[in-house]
Amino acid sequence: MSTKPATTDSKPILRVLGGEAAGTPPIWLMRQAGRYLPEYRKIRAQADSFLELCYTPALATEITLQPIRRFDLDAAILFSDILVVPHALGQEVWFVEGQGPKLRALDPAAGLAALSTQGLQEDGGGLLAPVYETVSKVRAALPNDKTLIGFAGGPWTVAAYMVEGGASQTFQNVKRWAFSEAGSFSSLIDLLVEATVLHLSHQVEAGAEVVQLFESHAGVLPEREFRRRITEPSARIVSGLHARFPDLPIIGFPRGAGALYEVYARETGVTALGLDSSVPAAWARHALGRTLPLQGNLDPVHLLAGGDTMIEAAAEIVATLGSGPLIFNLGHGVIKETPPEHVAALVAFLRGGSE
Amino acid sequence: MSTKPATTDSKPILRVLGGEAAGTPPIWLMRQAGRYLPEYRKIRAQADSFLELCYTPALATEITLQPIRRFDLDAAILFSDILVVPHALGQEVWFVEGQGPKLRALDPAAGLAALSTQGLQEDGGGLLAPVYETVSKVRAALPNDKTLIGFAGGPWTVAAYMVEGGASQTFQNVKRWAFSEAGSFSSLIDLLVEATVLHLSHQVEAGAEVVQLFESHAGVLPEREFRRRITEPSARIVSGLHARFPDLPIIGFPRGAGALYEVYARETGVTALGLDSSVPAAWARHALGRTLPLQGNLDPVHLLAGGDTMIEAAAEIVATLGSGPLIFNLGHGVIKETPPEHVAALVAFLRGGSE
Repeated sequence: MSTKPATTDSKPILRVLGGEAAGTPPIWLMRQAGRYLPEYRKIRAQADSFLELCYTPALATEITLQPIRRFDLDAAILFSDILVVPHALGQEVWFVEGQGPKLRALDPAAGLAALSTQGLQEDGGGLLAPVYETVSKVRAALPNDKTLIGFAGGPWTVAAYMVEGGASQTFQNVKRWAFSEAGSFSSLIDLLVEATVLHLSHQVEAGAEVVQLFESHAGVLPEREFRRRITEPSARIVSGLHARFPDLPIIGFPRGAGALYEVYARETGVTALGLDSSVPAAWARHALGRTLPLQGNLDPVHLLAGGDTMIEAAAEIVATLGSGPLIFNLGHGVIKETPPEHVAALVAFLRGGSE
Repeated sequence: MSTKPATTDSKPILRVLGGEAAGTPPIWLMRQAGRYLPEYRKIRAQADSFLELCYTPALATEITLQPIRRFDLDAAILFSDILVVPHALGQEVWFVEGQGPKLRALDPAAGLAALSTQGLQEDGGGLLAPVYETVSKVRAALPNDKTLIGFAGGPWTVAAYMVEGGASQTFQNVKRWAFSEAGSFSSLIDLLVEATVLHLSHQVEAGAEVVQLFESHAGVLPEREFRRRITEPSARIVSGLHARFPDLPIIGFPRGAGALYEVYARETGVTALGLDSSVPAAWARHALGRTLPLQGNLDPVHLLAGGDTMIEAAAEIVATLGSGPLIFNLGHGVIKETPPEHVAALVAFLRGGSE
């Protein structure tokens, strides 16, 4: 947890991350910038590829700010992708419309020979310089009471994409490598720990005030491997960042970790914990600690469906998790079919609670 | 838990399900019959479709018995599919090679008008008569010390397939229906509770000695909906079966339920709990009860990879979960690329522990 006194920040999200239990939780939404917004789709059409969008500061800045203009949210999150890190390391990455990301898959035989953190060690950040330029531009444009959040993928999740060559159902290639050739797989994880610290440090230097580690595939490992491939390397990322930026709040999001959320909370040193929608709120407050800042965890399908059940579900989260420090969020990203008016209604309800 | 005294059964699996902690756990494997076995692939080629295979007693019996002939396992599990229940209810179901199951998707507007449990209520079980005939044939052929396990899908998981029309990443159609039109979705769940009790009762009457409820998609619901759509209907299935067969052991497998495993264990009344691979063993024994029979939970990728790490992982499970009643199993089904020799090595190791 941050050692900052709870009262020095005027921004609501930073106060909660400092340990303050607010009456009304601050709010932002995972994937709040994106395809469900018509203004996003207009900008998307101006770039040939998804990666070009991420690497064009004028466009990425505009996309990052779009949800802040439309809704009364407390934070902007950098518009980018977790796969810019393997890209910067030298792996081929591309996006196929409607199919998601594709990578030229790594395997234990070819190993890591083609990968290097060289570019990320440069002053400007090499290939990712436009990403850090976007962070600066967003920070300059953002109102004073809004927080800017940077992010990276968790090392296990990024490794899974690098080895599977894209999304996977079974994760059998990456798990097989991790289980059977533990040494060479550790080299891949070590490389990602180093790259992630560099990537997030560049973001913080450019103006990110908080960072989130998206460990989206945390739910597919048995306990021993979870500790070795998720908890332990994440702890190294946290301590690497805190060595440079002692007060930096770091939100860990080990999606799907189930009962292992407890291990992650205890052993990584993260400032706050993002909860996926399947985590029971009362269990979380009890098992994960009454004073740990928590973030979450409305089911994105509630936001898609809208109406009374969305409001009831949101109220239940605030009632239970709000007994401690809480940042309201979804348990996963906004679904692309979500009507933007549902976001407006959710935010209005959460704000209304304070009046 | 079964009220049977622990000592009346000579079959190892029934003794564990009666509450006995065995020195060496009995063993069977989810999807132990199937594509990883060359003898299965030979039989598969004799039928035009996967469903034809399920509905041809001579072929389904042979497939069910194949792993028992090859390995020293303690149970056979009926070769069938969870989607025979929607098929029997009148929904169109087919399997596309390499793509998995497809169904003509239900939606709230069309509703349940086309579905009925009529066929399942008939003496022979209607469309599913060949499935029950398979159960009888397997039981007749099975050695005296082997247990025959029947199964069905959990009501939420089957409903998800029925509404999504197949496998899904986001489950947004079925969740939207469940969240927004709770009343009509409850009618679908009620129909499945009734059909599942009928389907499992026919299996028990034909010779199944234990049944397992596969709630494979238990990890995608927030707590309130988990209780309403998984725990509560599963409890009705358990009590419906126990009204007819008071001593029937019922294994519940709410895959991915995370911290909600506790709720499922406490509120469904199942005899035993199947654990997926992400459930930490020490947590399970502590949180779910020292005397509850548990089943699991080797990662199928450990079986795929084989070697020392497979043996170490298996030994760790036996050491931790084996302090109470334990049936050794995987945390999910056998992966089709698994070398059969790895199964032989795993069984030999587990048996060797008792010598």
